[in-house]
Amino acid sequence: MYMTVKKLSINYKTLEEFKQFREYGIQELSMLEDLQDNIIENDSESPFYGIYFGEKLVARMSLYRVSKELDKYFEPRQDYLELWKLEVLSNYQRKGFGKELVDFAKGFGLPIKTNPRVKSADFWNRMGFTSVHYDVERDLGENPLVWYPEGVKAQERLSTKEETTD
Amino acid sequence: MYMTVKKLSINYKTLEEFKQFREYGIQELSMLEDLQDNIIENDSESPFYGIYFGEKLVARMSLYRVSKELDKYFEPRQDYLELWKLEVLSNYQRKGFGKELVDFAKGFGLPIKTNPRVKSADFWNRMGFTSVHYDVERDLGENPLVWYPEGVKAQERLSTKEETTD
Repeated sequence: MYMTVKKLSINYKTLEEFKQFREYGIQELSMLEDLQDNIIENDSESPFYGIYFGEKLVARMSLYRVSKELDKYFEPRQDYLELWKLEVLSNYQRKGFGKELVDFAKGFGLPIKTNPRVKSADFWNRMGFTSVHYDVERDLGENPLVWYPEGVKAQERLSTKEETTD
Repeated sequence: MYMTVKKLSINYKTLEEFKQFREYGIQELSMLEDLQDNIIENDSESPFYGIYFGEKLVARMSLYRVSKELDKYFEPRQDYLELWKLEVLSNYQRKGFGKELVDFAKGFGLPIKTNPRVKSADFWNRMGFTSVHYDVERDLGENPLVWYPEGVKAQERLSTKEETTD
């Protein structure tokens, strides 16, 4: 099957298409508001990438390049990609769209971090992602999975602390 | 119904009880490993709070106090609580356990931030939580909801940027 990953622009058409995805949330609603209020221009850049099947957007993900100064995951410290909202519409699953998007992300040659739903662990394992060792201060409510390009490994374990919330 | 919120210690019994909750993930697995490897002691503090119904843990949440220096949500800047993994076992839902936990968290008098599942929006609205205005650089894959104690409001909107990921 022929697939091309496209960077998606923010416009009413795209935002309407996003409504078919389960993980439509505050991000999309805020984009819509900003567009209506002319805070962002029509067709401005979004962090989303997608795959069209014919005229229909059937798969998408968000990618954002986090700068080195904020890197708490990788050794050596470097810019990395945060990947989220990877989703394939249910009628189009198991055809390789998800893998195509992940491969596209890997193509930037940077380490990747994602925080997927617990139930999607199998998919991410097949994509070569591995668990980090959870650190409460860094990870809070996340279940981070990461992908290491060649020559990159996990940052040294942060010291084990007795966590206190009081 | 009589309910008491208890701070949960990390031990094999608690970790076994956690397996009944849907959001059992890397956090719990890492705790188990650390316990087995003696990296953390039995009964050491955890970020979890729970409610027992008789002998059974039926509801839980995690709370972590994030320090002022990292606060990107509240004005004036201050320590706040990150709340995650709020969950009530399905047979015990709609009895007020969730509200009891949230009220307990509010009792610290600090602002609260959480990143709930999209479908739980109604519950969080009833609890007095509101959406932030999404900011890609700060929020990435999150759908943050916040609760403001009296005298606290949202931080000024970060400047609207044309986000670039290339």
